This record gives sequence, structure tokens and C-alpha cells, in this order.
Amino acid sequence: MEPFQIDARDGDARAGVLHLRHGTVETPAFVPLATSATVKTMLPSEVADLGFDMVLGNTFHLFIQPGHELIERFGGLHEFMAWSQPIITDSGGFQVFSMGHGSVAEEIKGSRSGSRQDRILEISEEGVRFRSYVDGGERFMGPETSMEVQAVLGSDIALAFDECTPFHVDRDYTARSTERTHRWLDRCVDWRAEHAPEWQQLYGIVQGGVYEDLRIESAERIAAQPGVDGIAVGGSLGQEKEQMREVVRWALRPTPAEKPRHLLGIGDVDDILASVAAGIDTFDCATPTRIARHGMALVHDPDSRWRLDLAKSPWRESDEPIDPDCPCPACRDFTRGYLHYLVRAGELTAKRLLTHHNLTFMARLMSEIRQAIREGRLADYAEAVTSGGRARTG
Amino acid sequence: MEPFQIDARDGDARAGVLHLRHGTVETPAFVPLATSATVKTMLPSEVADLGFDMVLGNTFHLFIQPGHELIERFGGLHEFMAWSQPIITDSGGFQVFSMGHGSVAEEIKGSRSGSRQDRILEISEEGVRFRSYVDGGERFMGPETSMEVQAVLGSDIALAFDECTPFHVDRDYTARSTERTHRWLDRCVDWRAEHAPEWQQLYGIVQGGVYEDLRIESAERIAAQPGVDGIAVGGSLGQEKEQMREVVRWALRPTPAEKPRHLLGIGDVDDILASVAAGIDTFDCATPTRIARHGMALVHDPDSRWRLDLAKSPWRESDEPIDPDCPCPACRDFTRGYLHYLVRAGELTAKRLLTHHNLTFMARLMSEIRQAIREGRLADYAEAVTSGGRARTG
Repeated sequence: MEPFQIDARDGDARAGVLHLRHGTVETPAFVPLATSATVKTMLPSEVADLGFDMVLGNTFHLFIQPGHELIERFGGLHEFMAWSQPIITDSGGFQVFSMGHGSVAEEIKGSRSGSRQDRILEISEEGVRFRSYVDGGERFMGPETSMEVQAVLGSDIALAFDECTPFHVDRDYTARSTERTHRWLDRCVDWRAEHAPEWQQLYGIVQGGVYEDLRIESAERIAAQPGVDGIAVGGSLGQEKEQMREVVRWALRPTPAEKPRHLLGIGDVDDILASVAAGIDTFDCATPTRIARHGMALVHDPDSRWRLDLAKSPWRESDEPIDPDCPCPACRDFTRGYLHYLVRAGELTAKRLLTHHNLTFMARLMSEIRQAIREGRLADYAEAVTSGGRARTG
Repeated sequence: MEPFQIDARDGDARAGVLHLRHGTVETPAFVPLATSATVKTMLPSEVADLGFDMVLGNTFHLFIQPGHELIERFGGLHEFMAWSQPIITDSGGFQVFSMGHGSVAEEIKGSRSGSRQDRILEISEEGVRFRSYVDGGERFMGPETSMEVQAVLGSDIALAFDECTPFHVDRDYTARSTERTHRWLDRCVDWRAEHAPEWQQLYGIVQGGVYEDLRIESAERIAAQPGVDGIAVGGSLGQEKEQMREVVRWALRPTPAEKPRHLLGIGDVDDILASVAAGIDTFDCATPTRIARHGMALVHDPDSRWRLDLAKSPWRESDEPIDPDCPCPACRDFTRGYLHYLVRAGELTAKRLLTHHNLTFMARLMSEIRQAIREGRLADYAEAVTSGGRARTG
């Protein structure tokens, strides 16, 4: 069977199924982050019950702690974290390089950590030498290391090792970095051919910053590499949403339609809708679960960027749920007023409830998107969602 | 119907049922702490599903944040926190006085906080003036305030406002403090007669430190107060377990058998068994849930004080569950090795899983205790549990 089967098209958007070692993934799909081998505060069964078919594990973090050798003794990442469905692992490139140019993290993830600069010891053609954030010990990661760790973790989809160029670097740096990422891709493909389990899929990552020619060249180069099963779009995607969407369109232009396409680190509702319309199949993003832990709930309100900050005082006396139509435990049992109090008091229960809510929101959004594509009305659905008049489909 | 119905006796131990406004509580019972209107990391439905009939809310903390007036607007504590079964509220006395003589908290709760001394502004016959730990504002709590807050919260059982004398104070201070606690009890009874909902039960608190005559005198005084529905044993119960048990026996000696008896802040397995044998009906304690958040699981091992520290390195590669006979999600789905990793990595999921495990442990212990009493074999059961050869009963 083809690993990716497209069942319906609506413009450039597609609805389909990824057939992977540990099961199938209905697309377009949002992939919750299980960065450190857990979707923070959630049980695997809860994540599966929400309708998520795949989670994302973090090669870099698991390499540092607890180490892939230990996870191997438990039979791989699936067994270790008790998640039986597909897993995609990122390559670690983003995290390794973020220690050097901290601003990538700032640009893309909204992180404020600026003290990581001294953790990178050397960047070379071979890879990156750096210090562990856990024990300060020296570590090395290059394309082969990343592939080896991902093979040992046993993820269904591995990502090629890349440098995620930050927004602030110039065209020349971006061009040279992107070239190296391409050479690293070839080494990932070679390593995989010899060592990886044959069922593990490998996605190449399109880089090239905000430069049209570099993005297109990168996408062509990755599309031309026969050892690549899918295409991921990575890197700093621009400062403005419109620029981000343009970068996605450039990256997809030379990409063969039959291959699955993943967009790294993007999870805002409007961005997902625009990217699905452009032909993206899967997304991962820290935002829905991270903002939950900071007291923010996803809601159907484009004017607030789909966010409701429960810490804010207007909710102090509110006896309304976050969303009366949401079936999650937070909305089923509790008021905004109670959640406001829990968030203000720093209670862990709030982090758990809001994570559950935000993942419920994302699961329903993706389910509605898939249905809209199958029914040929994605544009109408997206218009309804982004204008605030949300059309329920289920 | 009598509010407390004793169904079976085994020596001084009793098994029975508390009939309260929001339902029944099978005794002997362990009461999980919902200090700040949540059993930290848990959903109310999960706590109920484990078989717990009652939780304990904290008058002091809820008075400070979010304030009882706010909770009143939501219809009381039950509605606010979505817990429909009985609630007992402590009086706030323990927390208020702990700000002054911080060593009570240290002695009883194992807290290390030593910087609270400047928060008490004045202790008088009226009550205590102190500074809020949230906003630094001045607050006052005395017997009437405590009763009013508890009436507004709408707990099924209120506790009288008391001073919990620390272990290190002398006999003279303890005697004078205990006398004041008795005068405060009379004021609580008076306030309640006039203002409280008629269904709210009031327990008096036996103080008297580690002094036999003071404990007996206190218990006699509380037993003689007709406005009291039940007896709680509070205060510093001694430095040694044997002394604690002796204090409990003194306190229960003059206590009428037909009244329910609560032991405050005690939750170790052997202490529960000994206290049930002495005639205690209900317990509350932070330990099971607090140690869970610090990576410790309750296990059937008297030699380790029933604790398994998952942060310790022997569990790094363990592919065993915490307890193969435990039905909780932590034991059902995960290895000690995985939990070790989560604890070391500081993951919130570990706090949630271990809280669920420890409450499962406590629920099963209490269920077995109740059954052992009904079958007249509590001593054998206690012997089996405390010697490590645990006899399953159900």
C-alpha cells in the first residue's frame, strides 16, 4: 500500500490517510507535542480518545534525557511512553541550533531564554558539539547521530537533520546553511538506507529562510532526493503571517503532489486553515498545549487570535463554561470563574484541564477541516472560522 | 436519621456511615485534601470513582484566595469546585497560627518554610490579625469569622476554630492556649446556632499538646458541649509515633462512643491502622498527595514506611509497574523506569499519575480496613499490613 493515500481534493487542499508502521493518520492532522515522551499533563489514552492519531517526540530532548539507549531497553519510544499509535520525531536540528542563535527560538517559539549561547561548542560540516542542559556534559549531534537516535526511538516518521536558520541572518548565511542542510539530508538518506528499520519514513526539510529562490531551490533539491518519503517545511517563516504563507507556497510549488507534507511549528487557527488550503497535510506546534499551561484556552474568536486568557479579571465571576459546545472536562464541569481562580492560584489542575480543552479544540478543528475538504467547501469553512461565524460540520 | 450510624465494632474500632447533607461517608474513611478547592491534578469524578465520599477544603486558603464571598456567588464550595459529595472544612486555625509559630507546620506537615513569622500581626482573645500571603493585605480571623466562612462555603462538616499548639511550647502555654480554644469553641457553637445552616455539622477539636491531663480535660470539655456533633483530635501529637498514639488514646477516653471522631493531619499507614483500632473514624492528611508531587509512590512495604521514591536510580531501568495489583493508570500503563524518568525530568504528568496512584492506594487501604472491621479481624489485618505480609480482603 502507498504510505500516503489522498482521498479527496479541494483546490490545493487534500484529505487523506498516512499508512504508517503503528497505524494510520487521517490528514490534515494536528500532531500534539509529546516533546519529552509525554503530552504534558495528559494520559496517552486521553490523547487517542480525542481523535489524535500521531504525536511528536523530540529527538534532542530524549537524546539528552533519558537518552535513547535507555529508551531502547524499554523497546523503543512507543513502549516507553505507552503510546501505541504513530509517532513522528523531529531531528533535533532546531533545538541544537537554537542553543547557538537563541533568536530562532524567540522568533518561532516565543521563548525568552537568552542564556543558551554558551552551550554550543562547535558547528562544523560534521555536526554540532554542545553541552547538555541537564548535566553540562559534552555531546555531539550530526545527521548520522540524529538518524540513529530516531531509529532507536522507533518513530514512524523521522525528520532529516537540518539547520533552522533564524530570521535575522542574511541571505548569504541562509544560502550556505541551506546548502549544508541539503548535504546533511544526503547523509541522512545514506545512513537510513543502511541502518534504519525499513518501515521508518524519512521527511526532508525545506529551508531557505524568507528568500523565494532559496526556498524553491531547497524544495526542488528535496523533491529530487529519491530517499525522501515526505516533505517538511521548516525554518523561520517570516515575521508576518502573510510572509509565512508565501514561504509555504514557495516551498510547496516544486513539491510532488503525491508526497505528504508537514509544516513544522505552526499551529494558529488561521495559519492552519491557510496552510491546509495551500496543500499541507500535517502540523505540529507547541502553542495549544503551552498556552494551556499558562492559563489560556482556545476559543472560536478570531479577534482574540482564538485565545481566552483565563487569568484576566473579567472571568472572575463568570459562571459560563469556556465553550458550552465543547465536550471536554473543563467545559463540561467547570465555570470560567473557577478556572480563573485555579489559574491565578497556580494550581496544576488548571494546566491539566486547559491542556485537555485546547487539544479538544484542535482535534475538532482538524476533524471539521477534513470533512470540509471531503465536501468541497474548505474555502467556505475557512471563511466562516476566520470571520468568527463558525459553521459546525459535525 | 442519626448523623452517624455504627454498623460494626471490632474492639474499639468501628465501621459505620456518616449521613451528611451531600451524601453518605463510609467509615473509617480517608479524606483527600482539596485544600484550594481542587484535589491537585485530579478531576472530581476521578476522586469519586476511587471510592472517596468526602474531601477536605481549607477555610484559611479559600478565605484568602479567592475569598468566600466569591465562592458564595457560585453557590458554595460544592458548586464552585464541581464536587457533589460531602465536604469537611478545617477551621483555618492551624494555618493562621502556623504563620506565627512556623514550627507547627514544620513538626506536623514537614514544611520548610521559615519566613512566615512576620505575617502575624496580633493574637488576642478575639482572634488573629495577619497579613495575606497573596496580596499582603491585613486580614482577621476569629471563631466567628471561621464559622461564617465555613457556613458560606457550605461544607457538610465544619471544624471549630482552634489554636494548634506546637510541640516545642511548654505546658503552661499549652494549658492557656487549650483553655482559649475551649472558649472559642463556645463562640463557634453560639454563632452556628444563630447563623449556620441547620444541616452543617460542627466538630470540636481536642487540643492539650502531649500532656495527658490537658488532653483528657480538653476531650471532656468538648464532649460536654452539647452543640458539638463530632470530635476532632488536633495539635502536635508528639515527636514519636508511640507518643502520637498515646495522645489519641487520651483524647478518645472521655469521648462518647456514639459521636464520630476525626484525626487531623495523620495519614501514614501504620498510624491509620493504630488510630482506627483506637476508635478514629475519619482522617485527613496532605502526605499521600503531597509526596506524589515529589515523586513518591505508596507501596506495601513497611520497611520503607510504605514509600517508593521513584527519583532514585535503582528504578532507572525497571520495567515493572509500581504495583502489579494496582488498577490505577500509573500501574496499568507505565513502568517504574518511565515514571523515574518523568519525575527526574520534572514532568507534570508524573505528579498527576502518582497522585492518582497514591489515592488509589489509600482508597483500597480504607476499603480493606472497613471490611476487616465488619469481619472482626482488624488486628490480623493490621498485623499483616504492618509486617509486610499483606492480606488481601477483596
